[in-house]
Amino acid sequence: MINIGIIGAGRIGRVHGESISKFVPNAKVKAIADPFLNDNTIAWANALGITETYTDYKKILADKDIQAVLICASTDMHSPLSIEAIQAGKHVFCEKPIDHDVNKIKEVLDVVNASGLKYQVGFNRRFDHNFRAIKEAVASGKIGKQQIIKVTSRDPEAPPIEYVKVSGGIFLDMTIHDFDMVRYLSGSEVTEVFAVGSVTVDPAIGEAGDIDTAVITLKLANGATAVIDNCRKAVYGYDQRAEVFGTKGAIAISNDSNSNAVFSGEEGVVAEKPMYFFLERYMMAYAHEVKSFVDAIENDTETEVNANDGLQPVLIGLAAKKSVQEGRPVTIKEIADEYNL
Amino acid sequence: MINIGIIGAGRIGRVHGESISKFVPNAKVKAIADPFLNDNTIAWANALGITETYTDYKKILADKDIQAVLICASTDMHSPLSIEAIQAGKHVFCEKPIDHDVNKIKEVLDVVNASGLKYQVGFNRRFDHNFRAIKEAVASGKIGKQQIIKVTSRDPEAPPIEYVKVSGGIFLDMTIHDFDMVRYLSGSEVTEVFAVGSVTVDPAIGEAGDIDTAVITLKLANGATAVIDNCRKAVYGYDQRAEVFGTKGAIAISNDSNSNAVFSGEEGVVAEKPMYFFLERYMMAYAHEVKSFVDAIENDTETEVNANDGLQPVLIGLAAKKSVQEGRPVTIKEIADEYNL
Amino acid sequence: MINIGIIGAGRIGRVHGESISKFVPNAKVKAIADPFLNDNTIAWANALGITETYTDYKKILADKDIQAVLICASTDMHSPLSIEAIQAGKHVFCEKPIDHDVNKIKEVLDVVNASGLKYQVGFNRRFDHNFRAIKEAVASGKIGKQQIIKVTSRDPEAPPIEYVKVSGGIFLDMTIHDFDMVRYLSGSEVTEVFAVGSVTVDPAIGEAGDIDTAVITLKLANGATAVIDNCRKAVYGYDQRAEVFGTKGAIAISNDSNSNAVFSGEEGVVAEKPMYFFLERYMMAYAHEVKSFVDAIENDTETEVNANDGLQPVLIGLAAKKSVQEGRPVTIKEIADEYNL
Amino acid sequence: MINIGIIGAGRIGRVHGESISKFVPNAKVKAIADPFLNDNTIAWANALGITETYTDYKKILADKDIQAVLICASTDMHSPLSIEAIQAGKHVFCEKPIDHDVNKIKEVLDVVNASGLKYQVGFNRRFDHNFRAIKEAVASGKIGKQQIIKVTSRDPEAPPIEYVKVSGGIFLDMTIHDFDMVRYLSGSEVTEVFAVGSVTVDPAIGEAGDIDTAVITLKLANGATAVIDNCRKAVYGYDQRAEVFGTKGAIAISNDSNSNAVFSGEEGVVAEKPMYFFLERYMMAYAHEVKSFVDAIENDTETEVNANDGLQPVLIGLAAKKSVQEGRPVTIKEIADEYNL
Repeated sequence: MINIGIIGAGRIGRVHGESISKFVPNAKVKAIADPFLNDNTIAWANALGITETYTDYKKILADKDIQAVLICASTDMHSPLSIEAIQAGKHVFCEKPIDHDVNKIKEVLDVVNASGLKYQVGFNRRFDHNFRAIKEAVASGKIGKQQIIKVTSRDPEAPPIEYVKVSGGIFLDMTIHDFDMVRYLSGSEVTEVFAVGSVTVDPAIGEAGDIDTAVITLKLANGATAVIDNCRKAVYGYDQRAEVFGTKGAIAISNDSNSNAVFSGEEGVVAEKPMYFFLERYMMAYAHEVKSFVDAIENDTETEVNANDGLQPVLIGLAAKKSVQEGRPVTIKEIADEYNL
Repeated sequence: MINIGIIGAGRIGRVHGESISKFVPNAKVKAIADPFLNDNTIAWANALGITETYTDYKKILADKDIQAVLICASTDMHSPLSIEAIQAGKHVFCEKPIDHDVNKIKEVLDVVNASGLKYQVGFNRRFDHNFRAIKEAVASGKIGKQQIIKVTSRDPEAPPIEYVKVSGGIFLDMTIHDFDMVRYLSGSEVTEVFAVGSVTVDPAIGEAGDIDTAVITLKLANGATAVIDNCRKAVYGYDQRAEVFGTKGAIAISNDSNSNAVFSGEEGVVAEKPMYFFLERYMMAYAHEVKSFVDAIENDTETEVNANDGLQPVLIGLAAKKSVQEGRPVTIKEIADEYNL
Repeated sequence: MINIGIIGAGRIGRVHGESISKFVPNAKVKAIADPFLNDNTIAWANALGITETYTDYKKILADKDIQAVLICASTDMHSPLSIEAIQAGKHVFCEKPIDHDVNKIKEVLDVVNASGLKYQVGFNRRFDHNFRAIKEAVASGKIGKQQIIKVTSRDPEAPPIEYVKVSGGIFLDMTIHDFDMVRYLSGSEVTEVFAVGSVTVDPAIGEAGDIDTAVITLKLANGATAVIDNCRKAVYGYDQRAEVFGTKGAIAISNDSNSNAVFSGEEGVVAEKPMYFFLERYMMAYAHEVKSFVDAIENDTETEVNANDGLQPVLIGLAAKKSVQEGRPVTIKEIADEYNL
Repeated sequence: MINIGIIGAGRIGRVHGESISKFVPNAKVKAIADPFLNDNTIAWANALGITETYTDYKKILADKDIQAVLICASTDMHSPLSIEAIQAGKHVFCEKPIDHDVNKIKEVLDVVNASGLKYQVGFNRRFDHNFRAIKEAVASGKIGKQQIIKVTSRDPEAPPIEYVKVSGGIFLDMTIHDFDMVRYLSGSEVTEVFAVGSVTVDPAIGEAGDIDTAVITLKLANGATAVIDNCRKAVYGYDQRAEVFGTKGAIAISNDSNSNAVFSGEEGVVAEKPMYFFLERYMMAYAHEVKSFVDAIENDTETEVNANDGLQPVLIGLAAKKSVQEGRPVTIKEIADEYNL
C-alpha cells in the first residue's frame, strides 16, 4: 500500500483524489495540500477519508510515511515542485506539462535521473480504453508498417481568455496531448513539424497572440507521417478521435457517448453527442494512470510515461509554434539544439 | 434476347418497363397493354422505345414474338391472367400475390406445372443486396444452425383507407413480403403461426376490419423460431431490417439511406433517415428479379421464386389472420387442409 | 450515511460490496455474513474495510447500527430472509427473483407493506445507462404513443446443467429480467403472454425439462405489443438490445464494447464483440441501483423497483411457462387468479 | 436529345457509354472512335445500340448531328482533342486532367472561353451522393463558417509501375481529385500548399521518382485549412472519406459497401469492406456527371465543372510537388506567376 500526498486541490487534484479512493486499491491519499485550502476543500477531503489537509505542501514532503506525491499545482510550479519532491525522496506524478521552459524540464530530468525515483507525467489519454486499443493493435503488428497517423482533437469550449494568455499557446496547452498521442501510438519519435494556425473561433484569442485552430503535420523517425487537427471549440462537444493506417490495415476510434441510444424520428436518425469534456471522457483514464504509477512504484518498474515523455511533446510544441511563426517546417533537432539537448 | 410484354401500365408496370430498359440487357419490352391506356402512358412507353401500346392485353398474348409476360395488373386479375398467359405459351412473371384465394392459386399451380413454362412471383426483396447478403451467409453455413430469425417491416405511410378495404388485410398485403423473407432467409417452411394485431395508427383501419400493427411468431420446420414486427406507418420512413441468429453467430442488416453523411451539431449526431419507400429502396431489386427471370428462360433453369413460393406466404397469411381472429396459434397444415393441399 | 449488511458473499454479494465502497458515498458496508465464510472471503472483506464478517446472518439483523441489508443469498432464501429482515426493522434490497413461488412473494409483499420499510428488488438493468436512455425518451413522450417494444437478450454461455435444473426454468431465471425491462420501458402492465420455446443450444437442457431459446410475445395494457427473444448462448457474447417504436419515432440501443476501435483489414471492417457478460456490461448499473436504494432510505422516497415490481415478472414468467406447455396464449389474470391476487 | 460521340473506347470510355445508355435519357451515343478499334469493341458498342464505330475520331468531329463529344483518350491527347473538338463546334466533356502542362490548359481555356461552347472536366466525385450531401450541407450554411476540411483518399492497389512513370506523379494523377474535392466542398480557392511525401508502399515507385503516400495541408482563401491524406494502397479497399468542420458543426461521410450486413461471430463484429474501387463506388457518379453535362447543353447553363475547375487542381498539384521537392510551403500564386496566369 502506497501512501500518496496530493499537492494542489483544484479540479485535477480532486479528480485524482476521488479516483484513487475508488479505483486504486493499492494506494491511499494520506494528505492533501493547497495554499488556498478552505472549508469546502477540507469537507471534500474528509468525505474521502483524507484527514490531513495542509496549506503548506512542505508538510507532505516532510512526511516519512508518504512515498509518492501527485503534483496538481499550477503549471509554473510543476518543475520546482518536481525537483523539491524528488529531493525529498518522493516518487513523483506530475501533471502535464512539466514546464513550458525546456531548460527547467532539463533540470527536472537531471534530478530525476540521478535519483532512482519514479517520475510519471500526466498524459492521461494513454490510459483511455479506446486509444489503448489502437496502441495495442499497432504494437502487436496487426496494422503492419505504419504509414499515416491521424489525430483529431477539438474542445467543446475555448478556455477563458485570461487562461489563454498564460497557457503557453495552443501547442503547449492543448496539442501537447496530441503530440504525446502520436508518440504513444507510433512508438516513434517526431523529427519534423509543419503547422498551420488560424483564428476561427474567437478574435480575442488572436489578439492575445495565440491561435485557436491548427493543422499540424509531423514526420516520424519510423517513416510514417502524422497529422493532427485541433480546434478550441466544437459545438457538438469534445471530439477525440484517432486512426493509424498501415500496410496491413487501419484502426480507428471514435468518440464515446453517455449512451448508445439512437432515435429515429422525422428529423433523421439521431445519436448522442460525444461526452462533453475530458473529465467525463477520461474519468477512468485518470484512475488507470495513477494505478499504473502506483504499480510502477510497488513493482519497481519503469513508469509508462517518464520524464523524457514529458520533454518531447514540449519540443514538438515549440517546433510547431516556430513553424507557424516562420511559415516553414521546423525540425525537432533545431529546437533541441537551441537547448543543447 | 427475350421479348417481353407488360400487362398493366400502373406504377409497378412502369417500374419494370424502366428497369428492363436500363438493367436487363438480354430482354426487350416489345409491347405494353393497359385498359386505361392514355397519351401519357403512350409517351412514357415511346420514350423507352416501346412502340406497341394496347388497351387489350390479348394482343400481347397473341404476339408470337413475345416469349414472356409481366403481369402487373390489379391483384384480382393476377390468377386469371397467369392462366391465360401460360395457356398462350408465355413464360410468366406475376406480381405478388398470385391471388388472395387459395383455390385460384391452386389452379395457377396446376396450369404452370403442366406447362413446362417458367413462372416467377414478384417477391422483389429477395433480390435486394442487403437481404441477399444475409441469405448467402445463412446458406453458406456461416451462422451455423439457425435459432432465431427477426424481420422488421414498417411502411412510411398507411395506404388510403379505400385500398385497405380491398387489400386482403395487412397479412396478405404487407406481411406477405415478410413471410416470403422468412422462407427465403431460412430456406425452411413455416409450420405454425401466432399473430397479435392492433390498431395503433388509424382507427379507420380498425373500422375497415383490418389491423395496422402486428407481431407474428412463426415456428419453422428447421427448428428455428421467426418473429416479424409490422406497422403501417413509421414517421422516420421505410424500415426494413432483418437478422438471423444461429449457433455460429448472427448476421443483421439495417436500412439504406440516400447518403451516409453524418452531421454532428448542437442537437446530436444526425444521420439520414432510411430511403423513403420501396421504389427507392428496392429500385435495383426490381431490376435484378426480372433479370433473374429472363436468365431462367434463356438458360432453362428453375425461376428463383416459383409458383409454390407464391402459394406458401398466402397460407401463412391466412393462418396469421385466423390466429388474430381466434387468439390462438394456427398451423399451416390446418389452413392447407381446408384447401385439400 | 447508511450502514449496510450484506447477506451472502458469493459473486453478486461481492459485486455489491465493491461497488458500494467505490460508488455509493452515502453508504458503508458494516458487516457481511455467509454460512461458507472462509479466509479468502475475510481477506476480501478486510481489503474493502469491512471488518465484521459472520457465518450467521442473524448477527447482522441484530445489529442496531445497520439500517439496511442486501440479500444476496441463494434464491430459495430470498423470501424468508426478506421477511426476517423486515421484521428486524431493516430496509431490504433483495436480489431477483424474490421467489419462484408466488405465495411466498405474497407473504413478502404483505410484510413489506405493513412495515413502512423500503424494499427494492435487484433488477439492475433498469439502472444501465443505455436502457435508461430509452426509458427517459419514452417517458418524456419523445416517441409518442408506444406501438412495438423489442428486447433481445442472449447470454454468452449456457449455465451449468445443474444450475439449469434448479433455476426455475429460463423464464423465471433469465427472461425475468426482460419481463421487467418491458414493464420498465413501457411503464405499463403485461396482460397476455404467448411464448414459443425450443432447445437449440444443448439437448441436456431439454432433458432437464427446460428450453434454451424462446420468443415471447406480450400484450400490454397500454395497447402496445412487446416481443422478447432469448437464447442461452450467443458465440459473440452478451447480447442486450432493446427498441421502443411509437407514433413519433423509434429509439434503440445496441451493445457496449470494451472499446469502439474498428479495424479495417483484408477480412473486413471489424469492431469489438459486446462486453462478455453481465458483470462487465452492468458494472455501473449495480452501483447505481444500490445508490438509488440508499437514496430512497435517506430521502424516505419510494424505491425505484418495489416489491410489486418483483412480483409481476414472476407472474409473466409463469404465464410464459404455461403458454409453452399448453401451446396457447395465457393471460396474466389467469395466473393471478390461481393465486387469488 | 443530344447526340454524343465518344473519343476513346478504353475503360472510362466504356463506362460513359454504358451509363449514358442506362441513365441519361436525354442523350444518345451516336458514335465511338478509338485508334485500336477491334471486334470486341465493336460488339460492345453494337450491344449498346451504337452502330457507328470508327478508328478515326475526326469522323466524329465532322458529324453535324453530333453536338457533344466525350474525350476519353489518353491524358496527353486531352488538350489537343479539346481544342480540336471546340473548333469543330462541339461541346466537350473531357476526362481529368485537361493536361499536365499548364500552358496547354491555358490554350484550352482560351479556346473554350472564345467559343461559347460548354466544357466540362470529369471530376466525377462531385456527383457522388455522399460528397454531394456534404457539399449541400456546407453550401446551405448548416455547418456555419468553415474551419477544417479533411479528405482521405486511398486506393486499393498501386497502379503498374509503367503507369506511375507517365502519370505525372501522385499529385497530378491521384490527389488531383482530392484537390478538386477541397475546392468543391469549400467553394473556396486554395492559396498555399504544404505537402509531405513518402514511399511506404513500393520502393519501385520511389525509384521512378514518385511517392506513394502523402499528407497535404492547404490554406484556403476563406480562412479554413484543409488536409488530405493519400496512399496508393489500402489493403481493405478504396477508402474515400471527407469531413467539413465549422462553427455550427461537422459533417462527415464514410465509405459505401456492397451491403450493410454485419456479422457478429467469435472473431468480432464484422462489416463489409468498402466497395473495391472507383468503378463500383462512383458508378452512379459517372452517370450523373454526364447527365449534368447534357442538361447544361440543353438548358444553356454553365457546366458544373468548368475549364477553370480543370486548371486549378493542376496548379495545386504542381505546388504540392514543389513543396515536397523543396521542403517548404508553396503558394498557388507562385505557381500561377510562373505561367503568367
